[in-house]
Order: sequence, then structure tokens, then C-alpha cells
Amino acid sequence: MSRLDSFIRRMTAQRDILNHICDGVKYLDGPVIELGLGNGRTYDHLRERFPDRRIIAFDRAVGSHKSSTPQPDNLIIGEIRDTAQTFVGVDAALVHADIGTGYDEKDAVTLTWLPQLAVALLAPQGIVASGLELRHPALEQLPLPASVKPGRYFLYRRVE
Amino acid sequence: MSRLDSFIRRMTAQRDILNHICDGVKYLDGPVIELGLGNGRTYDHLRERFPDRRIIAFDRAVGSHKSSTPQPDNLIIGEIRDTAQTFVGVDAALVHADIGTGYDEKDAVTLTWLPQLAVALLAPQGIVASGLELRHPALEQLPLPASVKPGRYFLYRRVE
Ligand SMILES: C[S@@+](CC[C@H](N)C(=O)[O-])C[C@H]1O[C@@H](n2cnc3c(N)ncnc32)[C@H](O)[C@@H]1O
Ligand code: NI
Ligand code: NI
Repeated sequence: MSRLDSFIRRMTAQRDILNHICDGVKYLDGPVIELGLGNGRTYDHLRERFPDRRIIAFDRAVGSHKSSTPQPDNLIIGEIRDTAQTFVGVDAALVHADIGTGYDEKDAVTLTWLPQLAVALLAPQGIVASGLELRHPALEQLPLPASVKPGRYFLYRRVE
Repeated sequence: MSRLDSFIRRMTAQRDILNHICDGVKYLDGPVIELGLGNGRTYDHLRERFPDRRIIAFDRAVGSHKSSTPQPDNLIIGEIRDTAQTFVGVDAALVHADIGTGYDEKDAVTLTWLPQLAVALLAPQGIVASGLELRHPALEQLPLPASVKPGRYFLYRRVE
């Protein structure tokens, strides 16, 4: 399987998961957090699914398409590990994190801080969808939609 | 439809088209040209489909994953409009161009030079697959695979 094939599968898994959880997220208050704005395609999808929700996007640099660039107060530029500290306790309904790099060593560094950060951003019962597997006692795995093969994308609920 | 949805459709169209034409391309001599290396995912797909073929990739900067970065002599860095001139007459079996930006004004500039460049790189009967529509008298549209909606990706043969 080529990297193009697996990329298509990963993007499709991401999209299917976000569609799958969006009804559940509607019963939770709090903003949606997009960690890794990138081109802004997923941000656009989140905005379509959660039209009335505040969506706060993070990236180390603005690389998004003009049409998918959040307003300045919802666009936090810098290293997520640092910039997101200000938002601890924001009680997010949903955290989406697509910040894997395709390099295991780099992703291992991300995983030293991402799980506890996700928990700290989430409301109780809040949901996190992530391209990287998150291991944390406060995160309970949720069933994936049938279209998504386990391990392709990850879905959890904050249970503590 | 969100930009994530249309991106997934475009990437799937690209992949399906490359799979669709690969048998035909095997009957043509000449290298494969990848205009716009990007992350290198499509380069990886081309390499998988054409393991014995020289693949020459172009981009203005190296942004590819380590595992999908061509050897230096097959990686041409700079503005494609300029750098590809050296390769005019290379008689490529396949030119793949994924250099749309999502900005109509920018893409319009690209389209002032891309169609004739594609023709100049191709062997007679060579094939070009492109994310942008190419209009040129020497390029004849080829039927798309059934999975690809017309207008999502473009496929031509050099007929002159
Ligand atoms: C794979 S892309 C996200 C793509 C996005 N889902 C889209 O729709 O375009 C990952 C993004 O996360 C950003 N990123 C990764 N790790 C980061 C970190 N530690 N701090 C800030 N930004 C980070 C990168 O700059 C990159 O733009
Ligand atoms: Ni569902
Ligand atoms: Ni076919």
C-alpha cells in the first residue's frame, strides 16, 4: 500500500469519525479545539458540522487556505505545547488533534505531552479524536464507526 | 461539502486515475514526470506502480517525507516553469501535475504555461494526468475511470 493509499484512508477515517461523533458532541457545551490547523480542510469540516460552536485552532504557523483561516482570536500561533496552556480548563466539548508527522521519533516527543494536554482541555465527558494513539487513565476508548479500521485513527472520551 | 470532503474526493480521483492508466503507460517508453512533489505521497504511489521507471520530481522546495524523497538527480528544485525547460524533449510516458493551489487567480497564471509544458515533456501518445484542466490542441481528453466524476481530475493523451 502506497503512502497515497494510506493517506486517503487516514483522511477518510478522520472525516468519518468527526461525522460519527458530531451528534454526541452537540449534547456537550464548550468549544471545539483543532490542534494542527494545517491547510484548514478539517477546520472547514468542523465548522460545517458545528456551525454555532466556537472553534479554536492551533498551529505553529499559518498555513491555511484563505477561506479556512479562523478569525484572529480563534487562531493561536506557536508551539501547541506552550500556547495551549492558557486554555487549560476551557472545558472543550471536542478536541481534534491531527499533529502526527510520519516520523516515529518526532511523534514520540509529541506523545510525552499531548495526552495530558487533551485531558486538561476537555470538559468531563468531552471527546478527543486523534491521529496518534493517546494513552491516559482519564481517556476511555470509544467504538469507531464501522468504516474505520482500528489503529487508523483514535477516539476517546474523558471519563475523569 | 466541506473542503475535507472535496480533498478526499480529489485524492481518491488522483489515485484511481493513476491506477487506471498504469497498464497503458507500460507500453510507452520514457520517464515519469511528477510536477509538484509536495509531501511525496503520490511520488510513492507512482514508484510503487512503476518500479522500473525513472521518475523525475519537481518542486520549488523540498517538503517531502524522508521515505519519499527522490535521489538528487531525479529531484529538480526551483520554479517548474523554468526548471522543466531543460527537460523539454525528454519524451515522458506520463506527466502527473498536482500543482493547483485552490486560488483561481494563481491557478490561472499556472495555466498560461502548464499545458504547453506538459506537451513539450511528453512522448507522442504520452499521457498527462492533472488536477487542473489543460486546454491544448495536442491534448485529447481520455475517458476517466468510472469512480471519478468529470471535473474532479483530468486525463489526456498527447495526439500530435
Ligand atoms: C497534518 S497537518 C494538519 C492538517 C489539517 N488537518 C488540515 O486539514 O489541513 C499538522 C499541522 O500541525 C502543526 N503542528 C504539528 N505539531 C505542532 C506543534 N507541536 N505545535 C504547533 N503546531 C504543530 C503543523 O504545523 C501542521 O500544520
Ligand atoms: Ni455515526
Ligand atoms: Ni482501470
